[in-house]
Amino acid sequence: MKISIAQQNYHIGNFEENTEKILGAIELAKKEGADLILFSEMSVCGYPARDFVEFEDFIDKCYESIDTIRKAADTIGVLIGSPARNPGKKGKDLFNAAFFLYEQKIVAEIHKTLLPTYDVFDENRYFEAASSWQVIPFKGKKLAVTICEDIWNLGDNPLYTICPMDELMKQSPDIMLNLSASPFDYTHDEDRKATIKANVLKYKIPLFYCNAVGSQTEIVFDGGSYAFDKDANLCGALPMFTSDLSFYTCNDDGTIQEPIIEPASRVPNKELNPATLVADLNIDQIYKALVLGIKDYFTKMGFTKAILGSSGGIDSAVTLAIATDALGTQNVLAVLMPSEFSTEHSVADAELLSKNLENPYHIVPIKNVYHSFLETLDPIFNGMPFSLAEENIQSRSRGNILMAIANKLGYVLLNTSNKSELATGYGTLYGDMAGGLGVLGDVYKIQVYELAKYINREKEIIPTNIITKAPSAELRPDQKDSDSLPDYSVLDQVLFQYIEKRANPSSIVAMGFSSELVNRTLKMVNTNEYKRNQFCPIIRVSPKAFGVGRRMPIVGKYL
Amino acid sequence: MKISIAQQNYHIGNFEENTEKILGAIELAKKEGADLILFSEMSVCGYPARDFVEFEDFIDKCYESIDTIRKAADTIGVLIGSPARNPGKKGKDLFNAAFFLYEQKIVAEIHKTLLPTYDVFDENRYFEAASSWQVIPFKGKKLAVTICEDIWNLGDNPLYTICPMDELMKQSPDIMLNLSASPFDYTHDEDRKATIKANVLKYKIPLFYCNAVGSQTEIVFDGGSYAFDKDANLCGALPMFTSDLSFYTCNDDGTIQEPIIEPASRVPNKELNPATLVADLNIDQIYKALVLGIKDYFTKMGFTKAILGSSGGIDSAVTLAIATDALGTQNVLAVLMPSEFSTEHSVADAELLSKNLENPYHIVPIKNVYHSFLETLDPIFNGMPFSLAEENIQSRSRGNILMAIANKLGYVLLNTSNKSELATGYGTLYGDMAGGLGVLGDVYKIQVYELAKYINREKEIIPTNIITKAPSAELRPDQKDSDSLPDYSVLDQVLFQYIEKRANPSSIVAMGFSSELVNRTLKMVNTNEYKRNQFCPIIRVSPKAFGVGRRMPIVGKYL
Repeated sequence: MKISIAQQNYHIGNFEENTEKILGAIELAKKEGADLILFSEMSVCGYPARDFVEFEDFIDKCYESIDTIRKAADTIGVLIGSPARNPGKKGKDLFNAAFFLYEQKIVAEIHKTLLPTYDVFDENRYFEAASSWQVIPFKGKKLAVTICEDIWNLGDNPLYTICPMDELMKQSPDIMLNLSASPFDYTHDEDRKATIKANVLKYKIPLFYCNAVGSQTEIVFDGGSYAFDKDANLCGALPMFTSDLSFYTCNDDGTIQEPIIEPASRVPNKELNPATLVADLNIDQIYKALVLGIKDYFTKMGFTKAILGSSGGIDSAVTLAIATDALGTQNVLAVLMPSEFSTEHSVADAELLSKNLENPYHIVPIKNVYHSFLETLDPIFNGMPFSLAEENIQSRSRGNILMAIANKLGYVLLNTSNKSELATGYGTLYGDMAGGLGVLGDVYKIQVYELAKYINREKEIIPTNIITKAPSAELRPDQKDSDSLPDYSVLDQVLFQYIEKRANPSSIVAMGFSSELVNRTLKMVNTNEYKRNQFCPIIRVSPKAFGVGRRMPIVGKYL
Repeated sequence: MKISIAQQNYHIGNFEENTEKILGAIELAKKEGADLILFSEMSVCGYPARDFVEFEDFIDKCYESIDTIRKAADTIGVLIGSPARNPGKKGKDLFNAAFFLYEQKIVAEIHKTLLPTYDVFDENRYFEAASSWQVIPFKGKKLAVTICEDIWNLGDNPLYTICPMDELMKQSPDIMLNLSASPFDYTHDEDRKATIKANVLKYKIPLFYCNAVGSQTEIVFDGGSYAFDKDANLCGALPMFTSDLSFYTCNDDGTIQEPIIEPASRVPNKELNPATLVADLNIDQIYKALVLGIKDYFTKMGFTKAILGSSGGIDSAVTLAIATDALGTQNVLAVLMPSEFSTEHSVADAELLSKNLENPYHIVPIKNVYHSFLETLDPIFNGMPFSLAEENIQSRSRGNILMAIANKLGYVLLNTSNKSELATGYGTLYGDMAGGLGVLGDVYKIQVYELAKYINREKEIIPTNIITKAPSAELRPDQKDSDSLPDYSVLDQVLFQYIEKRANPSSIVAMGFSSELVNRTLKMVNTNEYKRNQFCPIIRVSPKAFGVGRRMPIVGKYL
């Protein structure tokens, strides 16, 4: 049986474009003589469509797409993901489904059993879980079809009480097929490979796994689909971060004819070292995820041009370099906005950066605007000493200038805040926290340095001075980040334990950090929830990003 | 059996304070000779604690609270809500539980079966559902204990496939007890009463229902607990929006000794009229919910003073009046920020309003700041004509001034945007969309007028001119809202059908609205998701508020 895996990038709710892509892949697969083509989860409407699925006509459009695709599924079997209505009187209105189309008919409808609700997932919000399981007979073979999470319920402490593949095995299937929309994080490709392999080792039949690719607002789907033969040999590994169509011949004995072609782009990721939060080989993946995150945000929103504040610091430098890679040098405008507290090198460094990148830039000093605010507020401030308020006025003046240029000339503002700043609230709402998309919001400061090294791996793009100088917001004379925050090398480790690892304060102290430092840090994280709540979507690259996957009370007391 | 219902206001994660309140109620109930006291869902930690429950030590603290309360539960039975660990190897780590404490022991642990994941709820994210059911024998009676959603699975098309009360009835219980944390909206009290009554009519035993009270960030719990005897007579209705402790003697025959004492504050709410979006009697509840929402946000966050921009328009006037009611006149600072486009009456009206309310105010003209921005941007704007960019500069200058005063003097900025504006994106990010709490963000413009009438019901607080003049943002000469938006009387109806009712565009057109109007309106709603995503929490008063209960893709195409 010749099986094709179609790893594609969908636009949520853009049925016309998605269907066209799907039909294109079916056409190619038919030309190659494939018996069956496997698409990813929710392919017709894109994943996650969220509350869109609560609209009747959105579901109608899914069915219309299935109907169109059905007509193309004549000599080829098509496994395609879509929501499906629940005809039962009890339970939720929809299933997360896979349709098997063949000879222009809907041959089978498979429902997802395990509906994730952790992290960024909300599937139980919309879907009823499957409660019966059927293999699909096709060309003398029995296909066991599952959807994403369905194959993840392994180990000694599984999250769900049911294991759908165990149920399907009772009917002695020959081949496993899985439709996924499984998002990227810097550990996920290895986890995924291990999980797929574990299924093959357990059930001893081949598994074809198709993952979605492309970024959906904050969630990056990295593709990286796999084919494993019955002996758990890796026989196919599709590239990450890009669309692809591949073909495998699955022999009757469960072996797969094609040898593995591990794409050059597919480098295994190392375990993150908690002591440094850096694993060199992951940086390449993180970089590519951020590029794809920006590119897809702009393409799917219909935007082309980005603007950002270029301060001469490392965060804006790295954001600028990534943005020019994603959107093209000429499409990214840097705005340098020195104040009276800016050091001379800040402007010089930022200028050199834009010269290296060859992107356009403007210099817009904020002194007059800042003083105009001070004069206007003078009757109220009434001679009170310089404080955070004045620092924030500068930051918000910059935010206002960037938004004004964006509004006037049709740019989208990219935000340059990193995860360490967002975690601790070291940023100004409506100031440096402004923007439409957070590029580095899931990247700790010490990882930003690794990205800078990666960007400079062939030649100096980010000036060395930007990398080596001490981080500063430059909102008052001689200000340094270290005046307000612990050293990033320590801070980031504490944050990582608390945010990614959900470690208790006492456990973090037990790791060797002082309880004063831990309490101070965690208090900063918790009391700044209200700021992050107003932050833009952040491109997710870690297993726990701020935003939709981390849901904390704003009014709450914990620590 | 003498049963007490303790309707209390908890602070999420504030175990010390919550436990103290709970112990106080137990003490009072013991003095009154109660056999049993019923608390609300998740009382020890507050509801919804969201991802806090993923921390081991948060759960430890819940158990410590239960242990403290257990010691007070000597001669009285205590039914108290808390997360509980799942000792099983399979499934999620926690249950949403009720502990029955008596004679200083944990006599029983009940698990919630039906875990809502619609609208603002995320319970399946954290909790495993109950899969067995046991009545609790207590003083010769059998108690059927359920938690909130457990009693809501009625009707011909139930959301869940299991009905826990049906299971419990197999053991012939004598009394139903329900621990709830069921949030307010302007239709919910009637729904709740009907649902509770339907359970009593179905199972023919008395039901004691305890709901939480108090606002948790955006979600207002309105209390309004109930007691119904076996014949479905209403025997107790606790007040809405305030804590209360009440007592009922449940006779052996299932009657309840006390006559109903319907509190004066408890007026039945009318069905909302979709044609006007106004039902007079609801406005009283909406007003009280908004007052409680502000009050609890400030109290629980440890804030006392609010600031807001007072434009002379109706939204800021209503917000100001509600805020002074919630926080006290002297704790609310109004800032009038006229520009060169402001009409003379705007300042006069806003001044008169603050004189009526007797709250402090400042006048801070933005002309100099605005022109300073224009001069600074002149080299880039380069003589291009006045556009949205200049309008937004004014709005953001105001936002910056308000935040500067807030930062300098320790105020929290209240946002005055209404639901119609937020729906259509008729507002400036970081400008009039700035603020820590959205007071009117779930109130359509035509409902804002009803609130104004309600505020003025005894005497003119909001000047008539503010109510009668045409709405305008006053960001360019002679601007009116109606230049950009359909008339609110029509717009709000279309928005209501789309947002609250999830009506398809074609169904809205079928109601008699032009397809041009419907398409234009719905496109505005969908394309402004990115703005609302950065908006502050909105006090929820409708069945579908923007924010945590409405989850739409930002990068998505629907219409």
